[in-house]
Amino acid sequence: MLTEKTVTTFLDELASNSPAPGGGSVAALSGALGAALTTMVCNLTIGKKKYAEVEGEMKSVLEQSENLCAAFTTLIDKDTETFNKVIEAYGLPKDTEGQKALRAAAIQETTKEAALVPLEVMKHVIDALALAQVVAEKGNVNSASDAGVSALMLYGACEAAALNVRINLNAISDHNFNGWKEEELLSLLKTSKAKSDEVLEVVRKKISGV
Amino acid sequence: MLTEKTVTTFLDELASNSPAPGGGSVAALSGALGAALTTMVCNLTIGKKKYAEVEGEMKSVLEQSENLCAAFTTLIDKDTETFNKVIEAYGLPKDTEGQKALRAAAIQETTKEAALVPLEVMKHVIDALALAQVVAEKGNVNSASDAGVSALMLYGACEAAALNVRINLNAISDHNFNGWKEEELLSLLKTSKAKSDEVLEVVRKKISGV
Repeated sequence: MLTEKTVTTFLDELASNSPAPGGGSVAALSGALGAALTTMVCNLTIGKKKYAEVEGEMKSVLEQSENLCAAFTTLIDKDTETFNKVIEAYGLPKDTEGQKALRAAAIQETTKEAALVPLEVMKHVIDALALAQVVAEKGNVNSASDAGVSALMLYGACEAAALNVRINLNAISDHNFNGWKEEELLSLLKTSKAKSDEVLEVVRKKISGV
Repeated sequence: MLTEKTVTTFLDELASNSPAPGGGSVAALSGALGAALTTMVCNLTIGKKKYAEVEGEMKSVLEQSENLCAAFTTLIDKDTETFNKVIEAYGLPKDTEGQKALRAAAIQETTKEAALVPLEVMKHVIDALALAQVVAEKGNVNSASDAGVSALMLYGACEAAALNVRINLNAISDHNFNGWKEEELLSLLKTSKAKSDEVLEVVRKKISGV
């Protein structure tokens, strides 16, 4: 599993001449980093007298951001696994008409699966950004920049995942599937941009002391 | 060293109730991920007949992006180390006037050092984005989304690092230092936005087949 490798080894494998892990796994990792930073701000807020009023809310956010971080972490490996299945499908024999048909069907099926993984990353981003907003607004003010970096990593995860959804949709011939997923993708991108901008505005005001 | 921990452990330590590692180390990691993806696109381009014309250029980009990835990786740990020094300075005794003066001076000195680490991240981002642009334009077209994710991670690194520079500047009383660094920061942010937008435009055109 990629996530059980050291950060240095992960970077080395990413940089290597193997196409996986690639940008899809990085999108999921960026999401995990964003969720982990929101959890950190919760942990630096809970138990502090000054923030006693929001203690309950922070505990609830903490639980949700921990779950989201775990979900993103699973997707780091899942993205690479599904990508490897696409590569396997392309490697199937294509000598007879029957083989060609089976290979083409396998490519379509695995590529659809591969498109759904980054789409899942995008959906989790929207949930995680809602949590980042709570910690930016109500969490420990000394960790305002961490709430901001959380939002930035989540937004980056969403845009990065979108590129990976689209490069997969390009190889899919089911136009209904593509149209539906493209619509979903556009809506998720729009929401993540608006939500991360909101979080960053709160953070920048706190940092500049306005 | 943080970078010798597994990805899962890094995420756990990030999420913990210790303020370091925090957003500053994540900014440097985001830069490392961006540089590693540019290296990957070079590796997936070099040796391919179709890209023989750009082989020399790709080899040169590869060497530079490997160096930048190593530089970002060093800054992941350096950010946490310098942050811990700031915490130590705040912990110095403040019982006598002499102690108070020493403590205040130590806080100023360590905070200046802490501000310079994310500023270094931002400078490396500009160099790394220039390389991402080359691989987006001339690298293996099948890896276009990876070049795009590279640019997104680098841009996120720059914005995230900027928040960390600013939160440190807030605690520094040397107005000349702050003014000079704020000016540098604004210029780096502007360049990184413009450059990453350019790379993403190239990538989106390639992905949509325009």
